[in-house]
Amino acid sequence: MHRLICAINDMRNPSIVGLDPTQQLIPRQVVRTAMDRAGHGSVPESAACATDLSEAFLAFNHAVIDAVADIVPAVKPQIAMYEALGPEGLFAYAATCAYARSRGLYVLGDIKRGDIGSTASAYARHLGGGETDGGKDDASASACDFWHEDAVTVNPYLGFDGVRPFVEAARRHDKDVFILVRTSNPSSSQIQELALARGEALYEHVGDLVEQWGVDDVDDSGYSRVAAVVGATHPDQGAALRRRMPHTFFLVPGYGAQGGTARDAAAMFDDHGSGAIVNSSRGIIGAWRRSPDYRSGLSSPEALSLVSREARAAAIAMRDDLRNALYQ
Amino acid sequence: MHRLICAINDMRNPSIVGLDPTQQLIPRQVVRTAMDRAGHGSVPESAACATDLSEAFLAFNHAVIDAVADIVPAVKPQIAMYEALGPEGLFAYAATCAYARSRGLYVLGDIKRGDIGSTASAYARHLGGGETDGGKDDASASACDFWHEDAVTVNPYLGFDGVRPFVEAARRHDKDVFILVRTSNPSSSQIQELALARGEALYEHVGDLVEQWGVDDVDDSGYSRVAAVVGATHPDQGAALRRRMPHTFFLVPGYGAQGGTARDAAAMFDDHGSGAIVNSSRGIIGAWRRSPDYRSGLSSPEALSLVSREARAAAIAMRDDLRNALYQ
Repeated sequence: MHRLICAINDMRNPSIVGLDPTQQLIPRQVVRTAMDRAGHGSVPESAACATDLSEAFLAFNHAVIDAVADIVPAVKPQIAMYEALGPEGLFAYAATCAYARSRGLYVLGDIKRGDIGSTASAYARHLGGGETDGGKDDASASACDFWHEDAVTVNPYLGFDGVRPFVEAARRHDKDVFILVRTSNPSSSQIQELALARGEALYEHVGDLVEQWGVDDVDDSGYSRVAAVVGATHPDQGAALRRRMPHTFFLVPGYGAQGGTARDAAAMFDDHGSGAIVNSSRGIIGAWRRSPDYRSGLSSPEALSLVSREARAAAIAMRDDLRNALYQ
Repeated sequence: MHRLICAINDMRNPSIVGLDPTQQLIPRQVVRTAMDRAGHGSVPESAACATDLSEAFLAFNHAVIDAVADIVPAVKPQIAMYEALGPEGLFAYAATCAYARSRGLYVLGDIKRGDIGSTASAYARHLGGGETDGGKDDASASACDFWHEDAVTVNPYLGFDGVRPFVEAARRHDKDVFILVRTSNPSSSQIQELALARGEALYEHVGDLVEQWGVDDVDDSGYSRVAAVVGATHPDQGAALRRRMPHTFFLVPGYGAQGGTARDAAAMFDDHGSGAIVNSSRGIIGAWRRSPDYRSGLSSPEALSLVSREARAAAIAMRDDLRNALYQ
């Protein structure tokens, strides 16, 4: 976890920008340009195809990444948004990760995978290939880094069998794994808040497991490469988890659009203002939609320039909001 | 669920073939041919690239699908194996699904996705596009069926928020959703078997939720389009879940390679020998590796023909094993 924590400290900014594009979040000029380039000039934007949208996603993401690369330490592309465009979209996902990395950003792939045995090992190749279960590298394809992520999110429902291959891959490549503990959505309570016979809630038990799974991977920062996802919409629970999981770094979604405040998020940090990073997606990448400067007559480069300007302003506002809540 | 159940009844075969290729499961001649075709003739097979392996996966899957299409009702491609090859591999996944469908097979995509809100909706496009959350179809790309699946597996850890978009998409397109309830791996007990304060185990509670989530989607077969994954390695628990979830169809992994027998699996069926489908992956697609007829001197077409022959024999043996356990 030291790379991410160093980057956060260097920028005095524990925030991460979610790269979750949808067609609605992208200025229509940008989609239009991608369509014209593909020879789809006579088709309305509402009928853009996967190739058009993949190209538009990428142009949009470049604008956001360029705007924030010197002020935020990390980005979190949400793979579902790209997967919604079919296999074509996954190329845009991987290219987004690669570009963000080339700009020095830490890339947390929000993939929420989870399976068992050889299947979990296959998913773990998100973190790079190399030795497989049997300690034997069977193919150079498996040694390639196709996805360009520094960390991924993982679902814990299958137990450690589903987590171990990710942790092992993370060790080999000095990367990190973020396990879902307490998510920020309303119905998460249907399962995560269930009271166990032994007294604690399920999410607390999962928190204990995550802390224990990471015990051998704590580095100089005091935190393990096995991290947790803890939503900002549950600040009391988050504060209790912070005490319960002293070596576990937290990804905190739910800030902004989902109702969490910087004060809520602050509960997930340690006494030194470290130990967590707060995500915002639409609040930053969709900031241009609240700008009075947007006009339908803008060209695609002008619209992307507005996306950049507004994303940067929103990222700075979020940074300062977190600094105020944490460092004063 | 009526389409799958009709297909099972027509063939008197409640089994599903897992299409989980890895390079080790594919005769080397097939990989070699893909490499030669791509101009990688001088590279050893151990250094096959993602494009080579994607093509080899597809040739291998075609051989298996052609061999079993008239005797098994369904296939279950495991997306992780394709995702391990990067974005390129996802094209092979989608092409596998499309080919299986063209041969009349029901395609259950084993994707184990799960997220919330707009992200879950994006994942739900695995089942086809169309109306989104707001009841508005925003782009024709979203209306496309990129993945060619008839059903997908979903992880329940985020509660119904993560499931609802899949159920809604399944309704729109007459497809099905399989929710993880009790998986077949050893460490599943770390979470799924936890005793809840109210008395039952977590997986039983999840079973109750799944039964309830499907209550409005029960069709003439008596089963809902909201189905469950229940591993064959826990037959007693499976039998209890069968009674507890009378309208929920079960996908039963763990037969064969993972140690589950036909008798174990039989516990997951109802009194009429319906209500479940049993998966085997390596036992069928890897059957050629146990054949005395395999020789390294075989050509690629000869090796694929052996793959077909052995897969068909293994699929027939499994079918007859299940028939003996269920219908006598």
